[in-house]
Amino acid sequence: MKKVGIVMGSDSDMPVAEKAIERLKDFGIPYEVHIYSAHRTPAQAKAFAEGAEAAGFGAIIALAGKAAHLAGALAANTTLPVIGVPVKSSTLDGLDALLSTVQMPTGIPVATVAIDGATNAAILAAQIIATGDEALSATIKEDRAKAAAAVLEKDAALSN
Amino acid sequence: MKKVGIVMGSDSDMPVAEKAIERLKDFGIPYEVHIYSAHRTPAQAKAFAEGAEAAGFGAIIALAGKAAHLAGALAANTTLPVIGVPVKSSTLDGLDALLSTVQMPTGIPVATVAIDGATNAAILAAQIIATGDEALSATIKEDRAKAAAAVLEKDAALSN
Amino acid sequence: MKKVGIVMGSDSDMPVAEKAIERLKDFGIPYEVHIYSAHRTPAQAKAFAEGAEAAGFGAIIALAGKAAHLAGALAANTTLPVIGVPVKSSTLDGLDALLSTVQMPTGIPVATVAIDGATNAAILAAQIIATGDEALSATIKEDRAKAAAAVLEKDAALSN
Amino acid sequence: MKKVGIVMGSDSDMPVAEKAIERLKDFGIPYEVHIYSAHRTPAQAKAFAEGAEAAGFGAIIALAGKAAHLAGALAANTTLPVIGVPVKSSTLDGLDALLSTVQMPTGIPVATVAIDGATNAAILAAQIIATGDEALSATIKEDRAKAAAAVLEKDAALSN
Amino acid sequence: MKKVGIVMGSDSDMPVAEKAIERLKDFGIPYEVHIYSAHRTPAQAKAFAEGAEAAGFGAIIALAGKAAHLAGALAANTTLPVIGVPVKSSTLDGLDALLSTVQMPTGIPVATVAIDGATNAAILAAQIIATGDEALSATIKEDRAKAAAAVLEKDAALSN
Amino acid sequence: MKKVGIVMGSDSDMPVAEKAIERLKDFGIPYEVHIYSAHRTPAQAKAFAEGAEAAGFGAIIALAGKAAHLAGALAANTTLPVIGVPVKSSTLDGLDALLSTVQMPTGIPVATVAIDGATNAAILAAQIIATGDEALSATIKEDRAKAAAAVLEKDAALSN
Amino acid sequence: MKKVGIVMGSDSDMPVAEKAIERLKDFGIPYEVHIYSAHRTPAQAKAFAEGAEAAGFGAIIALAGKAAHLAGALAANTTLPVIGVPVKSSTLDGLDALLSTVQMPTGIPVATVAIDGATNAAILAAQIIATGDEALSATIKEDRAKAAAAVLEKDAALSN
Amino acid sequence: MKKVGIVMGSDSDMPVAEKAIERLKDFGIPYEVHIYSAHRTPAQAKAFAEGAEAAGFGAIIALAGKAAHLAGALAANTTLPVIGVPVKSSTLDGLDALLSTVQMPTGIPVATVAIDGATNAAILAAQIIATGDEALSATIKEDRAKAAAAVLEKDAALSN
Repeated sequence: MKKVGIVMGSDSDMPVAEKAIERLKDFGIPYEVHIYSAHRTPAQAKAFAEGAEAAGFGAIIALAGKAAHLAGALAANTTLPVIGVPVKSSTLDGLDALLSTVQMPTGIPVATVAIDGATNAAILAAQIIATGDEALSATIKEDRAKAAAAVLEKDAALSN
Repeated sequence: MKKVGIVMGSDSDMPVAEKAIERLKDFGIPYEVHIYSAHRTPAQAKAFAEGAEAAGFGAIIALAGKAAHLAGALAANTTLPVIGVPVKSSTLDGLDALLSTVQMPTGIPVATVAIDGATNAAILAAQIIATGDEALSATIKEDRAKAAAAVLEKDAALSN
Repeated sequence: MKKVGIVMGSDSDMPVAEKAIERLKDFGIPYEVHIYSAHRTPAQAKAFAEGAEAAGFGAIIALAGKAAHLAGALAANTTLPVIGVPVKSSTLDGLDALLSTVQMPTGIPVATVAIDGATNAAILAAQIIATGDEALSATIKEDRAKAAAAVLEKDAALSN
Repeated sequence: MKKVGIVMGSDSDMPVAEKAIERLKDFGIPYEVHIYSAHRTPAQAKAFAEGAEAAGFGAIIALAGKAAHLAGALAANTTLPVIGVPVKSSTLDGLDALLSTVQMPTGIPVATVAIDGATNAAILAAQIIATGDEALSATIKEDRAKAAAAVLEKDAALSN
Repeated sequence: MKKVGIVMGSDSDMPVAEKAIERLKDFGIPYEVHIYSAHRTPAQAKAFAEGAEAAGFGAIIALAGKAAHLAGALAANTTLPVIGVPVKSSTLDGLDALLSTVQMPTGIPVATVAIDGATNAAILAAQIIATGDEALSATIKEDRAKAAAAVLEKDAALSN
Repeated sequence: MKKVGIVMGSDSDMPVAEKAIERLKDFGIPYEVHIYSAHRTPAQAKAFAEGAEAAGFGAIIALAGKAAHLAGALAANTTLPVIGVPVKSSTLDGLDALLSTVQMPTGIPVATVAIDGATNAAILAAQIIATGDEALSATIKEDRAKAAAAVLEKDAALSN
Repeated sequence: MKKVGIVMGSDSDMPVAEKAIERLKDFGIPYEVHIYSAHRTPAQAKAFAEGAEAAGFGAIIALAGKAAHLAGALAANTTLPVIGVPVKSSTLDGLDALLSTVQMPTGIPVATVAIDGATNAAILAAQIIATGDEALSATIKEDRAKAAAAVLEKDAALSN
Repeated sequence: MKKVGIVMGSDSDMPVAEKAIERLKDFGIPYEVHIYSAHRTPAQAKAFAEGAEAAGFGAIIALAGKAAHLAGALAANTTLPVIGVPVKSSTLDGLDALLSTVQMPTGIPVATVAIDGATNAAILAAQIIATGDEALSATIKEDRAKAAAAVLEKDAALSN
């Protein structure tokens, strides 16, 4: 199975990144986690993106806050799908990270999810990896059915 | 090759949708275009999403403005990757559509691109479809190289 | 008397929903509470909305946060008045939920109240149910008179 | 049948108000149109609201821009449902009117629709008036079915 | 000397109002404090504003949060200068109150100060009352000189 | 009668300033107009403010766009009431000017009116100058009555 | 004299860039103009930044819109001062570009000027280059004196 | 070596200012710290800026919150580069300070960094002072290399 790369701009993004890691584990998808900054270690970020396809990655999740350039910087150096997770920081409630991640210029898309939405980034990565993988596709569908069942169980509990 | 579904919430979104159509044509990716509203024709939107995987779609692009629920409504009914294009309308400059598209709750991701960013939605769809399709992957890389060359040509023109 | 349906997208919305429940109890209006997610349990949400009028509901209150599609999803499946309560979540201070709830496209209105404004949602539901119900109308007027008296009592206390 | 009152804060709001008038006419709902400013003619606005229930109104639609207090000022003087339409003016794209209309304090709800969303205000008023009016309820359902059919017709046209 | 009226929309605004009270006391300006809500007690708010000039008030300070209509509602019923203090509430960080207070339509100005800026409201009221009152004018100038001296003292302390 | 100073940061603000000039003329209030920039001619702006009280001014209206510091810079150098008019420029719809004008620190208030609200600035200046001027106060009241009558005339026209 | 590099992300930024070019010409500062995209030609952008100091540049001006990463991408590859000009594009009025440019993480500053503020970028670059260049410093001071004189001339014209 | 001036508008800005002080110490750059308010002590702020070049300063860092005029007020009185640090205060999350600092009118630039970004202000000041100072330039490069190494060390730790 293709791997998912998880790259965060700073180790302070780890609590958010862990939500993605946990979900990928649940799905049984192999992953690799890195801390590379688009600004402080641009060469390493670039090298990772350039080599990702050959290294067996099928999608990359990038997490960053403030002027969140990491997802865009990775996307500029690979044609693998790059999923951006804007991370909320101490000011502006994540709006800066959201706009910096999603408003990409024509030619280089970043698949952006909600602010701090790392679980959804993992699910989206799984949906991409599942292209042509029946077993993984089934796992994702089961996971979703479980989530629906959990909602319905809570609803049923209200009636008692 | 898997098809890409393009669904828009209103025929007023067509000028934006055409940017996606054009790019998919360039890539030689089969596509199907529909007008389904999450609010005015919810049953048809749901039916399309539920049947999309079986019908040979590999990704769905949803375009909508204002309280843009279309991408989320489709994503709720399929585990295919759904790409959301927030469309700018007459007020709030697309911010309403962006937040309505990207801020999805845990469990149901929408891969959101820039406001009116339909070209990038097509490229992202291509990157997803290209998982395990060497020829398409090469086409995408060529396209990107051409875009880079165009920039450099303009840069070179400045020096003359 | 017609019933009021209270639907929330997640059990985490319960503290806000309780403000609506409490006020409906004060008014003596029958109500029913459900947890249905527009995204995780779209079929149940749809079924509830489609059956609401026949089941004796006169208005529906929907509470949801982030890309708050619940009110719109219910409104798409009933012609009963649907009241939307945008719920503040961990980022963006409720602005995402407000815009996702209020900026509905032409054809499918959602009667939106303030962020976390569930008490007002209950009062609005009561005002709607009171159409042609003299007794309930009188109850609402008394409630309002009491609220005014409470303000004036506090004002009077300042002068002592 | 109960009447719908349409009150606008300034005659410059008339182009937006006309969308509500047109839809009420389509529905065959009687209505009355007024220009009363919460700030320039507060006494008349108050008098209208206080007398509205006795005068046979079942709902009031209020349109105003900027610091849009009109809906709230009317709602403070009646327990009829008041529907607020925030009107976009020359600055801030309607955000000022939206927040001034929707963020009402506990006790006095305003049923807020989208910026410039006067058609939806009329539909919401109709849904409220239709409480206990089978014929009007049927008219609203037909109207919605026509809107759905129009979307599907446009969708079908794409396939040809 | 003319009095300053301090009106707040809710007793929850008292901590902010106290900053204005304290400063008016420092200036030796007579004042009166009231709790009147533009929405819950519109008649009393109107009556206060209408009678304010005759009752010896020279300026009115109005404090309110959310859809903060109080300053505008008072200003609609008097030609005394009305100073609006937008109060921060639990969502939107005071932006709703700021826009609701400052974006008044032509004809009815509200002199708006910063969010929670009640001290400045008191100073502004004093500056208005001081028109033609040499002694008060001198007091305001001394107060300002003291504030400057306090800054310079802190600056000097840095050098030691 | 005390004069009103009108100071704008750039001659591009003149179309907005003219609305204030026109209204002051209507009121028969003497005024003086200047172009002083807080940034390009700080010394002249300071000198004007420092000398304004002695020169017979009773209030100052300051108009500026973008990082609109003019009102604050004048207020820092006089204890006369300073009224700030945020002017909309080519980006951000006047929000930058509004926040730069209204969010003043404790000690130096600016009486802020709506974006581009120069007519209201003139009315507010008149209300301040009218402190202890019965004739001007009556003129302001007449002006307001005329504005109310104009609204009511438009309302009456709707019924014909 | 050190040169100023002007880099724009797209040739559509040229109208804004020309304001910087014009002002540098006025100052007699040598400059070089390039079109490099942080996303479409990341290698060239990086190479330019890495070589800029050795090539005799003293400051770099970067212009970009939307998710404006260009200034940050250049700053990540040089320790020369990088000045960022956020460029307004078709949505969000430049707010996206402003936040993407200014909210840089600790370690890699970008000296950000106003949206579309390319003239000020040139002046700031000149102020930096003028460090230790008496003649250029004098030119800048003359330029500023001329701007002040122009304001005062317009002010004087008002009095005639 | 040229000195860096650090000016803050209030002693409450000290915790942010200390981040700049610390970094300048690390770089071995002489500095001077002052508390001057653009509004409460405008004369001292002006005097400092006017004398700064002659006193041996090479750049000025200005920190202020809310309607943050300090950087602009200093920049208006010197042609040295002025770096603005918008400081987050109790409302609006620093957006007011950011816009007040960065949106300067043509002619008077302020080099703006991120909200609360005082460390980057110090680095930017160092980059400016380093113009023509090989040793300082080398120090800055070492500092950056260390920051990169720290990131890579954290990345390496993940693999163990």
